[in-house]
Amino acid sequence: MLDELNILKQLLPSLPQAEDVVAGPGDDCAAVACGGRRILLAAADQLVGGVHYYRETTSPEAAGRKLMCRNLSDIAAMGGVPKWALLCVAAGGRSPEWVLAFCRGAAEAGKRFGVSVIGGDLASLPAEGEVASLTILGEADAAAFTLRSGAKPGDLLYVTGEIGNSLASGHHLDFEPRLAEGRFLAENGFASAMLDISDGLLLDAERLAKASRLRLCIDPAAVPLRAGAERESALSDGEDYELLFTVPPGREEELKQVWKLTKLTRIGVAEPGEPDVCDCSGRSLLRNGKCGYEH
Amino acid sequence: MLDELNILKQLLPSLPQAEDVVAGPGDDCAAVACGGRRILLAAADQLVGGVHYYRETTSPEAAGRKLMCRNLSDIAAMGGVPKWALLCVAAGGRSPEWVLAFCRGAAEAGKRFGVSVIGGDLASLPAEGEVASLTILGEADAAAFTLRSGAKPGDLLYVTGEIGNSLASGHHLDFEPRLAEGRFLAENGFASAMLDISDGLLLDAERLAKASRLRLCIDPAAVPLRAGAERESALSDGEDYELLFTVPPGREEELKQVWKLTKLTRIGVAEPGEPDVCDCSGRSLLRNGKCGYEH
Repeated sequence: MLDELNILKQLLPSLPQAEDVVAGPGDDCAAVACGGRRILLAAADQLVGGVHYYRETTSPEAAGRKLMCRNLSDIAAMGGVPKWALLCVAAGGRSPEWVLAFCRGAAEAGKRFGVSVIGGDLASLPAEGEVASLTILGEADAAAFTLRSGAKPGDLLYVTGEIGNSLASGHHLDFEPRLAEGRFLAENGFASAMLDISDGLLLDAERLAKASRLRLCIDPAAVPLRAGAERESALSDGEDYELLFTVPPGREEELKQVWKLTKLTRIGVAEPGEPDVCDCSGRSLLRNGKCGYEH
Repeated sequence: MLDELNILKQLLPSLPQAEDVVAGPGDDCAAVACGGRRILLAAADQLVGGVHYYRETTSPEAAGRKLMCRNLSDIAAMGGVPKWALLCVAAGGRSPEWVLAFCRGAAEAGKRFGVSVIGGDLASLPAEGEVASLTILGEADAAAFTLRSGAKPGDLLYVTGEIGNSLASGHHLDFEPRLAEGRFLAENGFASAMLDISDGLLLDAERLAKASRLRLCIDPAAVPLRAGAERESALSDGEDYELLFTVPPGREEELKQVWKLTKLTRIGVAEPGEPDVCDCSGRSLLRNGKCGYEH
């Protein structure tokens, strides 16, 4: 297995970023200035057959849809509007019909949110298997998009929807990217920091804590669970594709009053301190057996 | 082997394009309006280990560089300026050092042309092998970028550099994307249509002929050859990454006078007629044994 985090740690410092790059690698999307008051958002993600879906039992439409929706979730996490996508598929031992259905699954999922698939590439693999990648492009107002780094001590930690049991429930193949939610939060300034939960609530909370340089205290009992989820594993399972964000305390009441979208739950608070994710008694949840993110 | 052209023929009509898409799939890059007088260009391409480079003998740096430069060549073909890239690598049975060197090779090649690698993804493959994909983003003036479809009967067909023997000479791993050339041609209105030669001069000429709905007459003897190239195979070998473009006849003299960049050769002319690529006597070069594009 590639140790992605370790490779990135070595790679990122050697990637020069031009002045027009507002946010480089490390957030849900990169953000670049492309003239005017709009910011261009861009993210790329991969889907590997046998890793991100079962090669034998997952339909190509569902796999393609998952790839698109994972990327849409990254746009949602920035509070952006998805616009365009480029789709690459490399496949070996699959029929043209399979590849076509995969691409259509991705395109259909994007179409629901106004995304045009404007380009891409198809290639043959010398061995059996599939690797697909998708780049999503979106836009946001330069004054109203959300990074992971903006949380302040005292901000309240919220999560959309429910957490856990994504694999067994099939949620990981059929989730709703929280685009309306992300955009509403960003455009109205409710979210001081935001990301989407793809690798597990605790791991993604740690990313927010590190980027914002503070400690997040989470009440595990407050985390809303998907049907069938167990509380401990739910915090680290991943593939939830919900939004995790912080709200300045002065905005909480107003948010509650005007919010008309999906379920919203307060699960913790940001505190000053070394980046960490703790329970209410201040005990770290990150390296705590089943509550950890080794999976 | 996937029949890419056949799959695309079925897929493309089912890809809806929003109104802000100036040029959708089918050209070297897609072009979208993103506010103001600038056009955003986007293209994605893949590089498969064992298909686009030798897994045993090609260095990871050279493979990464090739991936970046193939994409830069697509920006060149639109007359654009490359700006940002997103890089995905899926690898099995490779060391972290190999992956790191691949990424650095791509990033270094981009840096020479002002490209920031702003995002991407790394993934493990369950089997041995590598698939990498890169999305390149660039900009062009809305009034000065070049599609494949703008050639008119009477326009003169030109090619940059030399053609053929790309594989044996190593050119395919170490070529110069014709960015300065493409931009100069587009910004000064010298090129009525343009693309880059990736799949063979004849096949790419046919694409230009089809997009512009005319016949291209090429003098095979006029095609400038790379050292070691044989004339017949050179026309269909591919991986030349040179620009093929048409010049309105009234602009030819001025172009010759002001051109200070790489070698430029006139190899043919556009004529009215069904889309085809012919020799000077009007005989099609496309389905003519070794001169064809079956490779």
